[in-house]
Amino acid sequence: MDKVNIQEKLSLFDDLWSPKIVGEMNGHYVKLAKAKGEFVWHKHEDEDELILVVEGQETIQLRDRDIVLNAGEFFIIPKGVEHKCVTKGASVLLFEPKSTAHTGNVKCDRTVEKEEWI
Amino acid sequence: MDKVNIQEKLSLFDDLWSPKIVGEMNGHYVKLAKAKGEFVWHKHEDEDELILVVEGQETIQLRDRDIVLNAGEFFIIPKGVEHKCVTKGASVLLFEPKSTAHTGNVKCDRTVEKEEWI
Repeated sequence: MDKVNIQEKLSLFDDLWSPKIVGEMNGHYVKLAKAKGEFVWHKHEDEDELILVVEGQETIQLRDRDIVLNAGEFFIIPKGVEHKCVTKGASVLLFEPKSTAHTGNVKCDRTVEKEEWI
Repeated sequence: MDKVNIQEKLSLFDDLWSPKIVGEMNGHYVKLAKAKGEFVWHKHEDEDELILVVEGQETIQLRDRDIVLNAGEFFIIPKGVEHKCVTKGASVLLFEPKSTAHTGNVKCDRTVEKEEWI
């Protein structure tokens, strides 16, 4: 158990849409991810998911509205709510149950089967 | 459900060592707090607790070592581990189960019985 410096961890990878695990607590993982472009529409049936933008800007599209997140802003996507992330470039911190698959109910070429610790 | 801007929420209060709730997910609360000086030694028997420094610097004293957190750094205090926070001035984001009392196993004049949403 040691402290985590978010910028230091972000400097360790460049691949997009591929969350890295940086912490674990109470059955949840803290993850960092880099994103650019758009992700797939998906939902998490049983898990609320927190997305905090660290750098850049990311839009969380819901079926009825868009949530535009700038650095220092977070949004909690409630379980069961379909969403899609769109960004010109962002680094984000995720907080979600260990059971959460990052493409949720959707399997596609973006799906990472086993996320790794960094 | 709306997004949360951390700086905007921090501008809403000035009281020290009195966490405010700004989000809720999977049985956990996201909280913001301002701190200056030192807190009491305590532990949380059943809850891991995440502390992310947003502004300033905060030292998490453990019985065997100190963890110095600068802005953009977090530490997860494992359940059952005694800790004390010391700072010359910091704003922090906390992530912890809803059941978590902020002075843990200790009742003292610092204990806030009911934390409020902002």
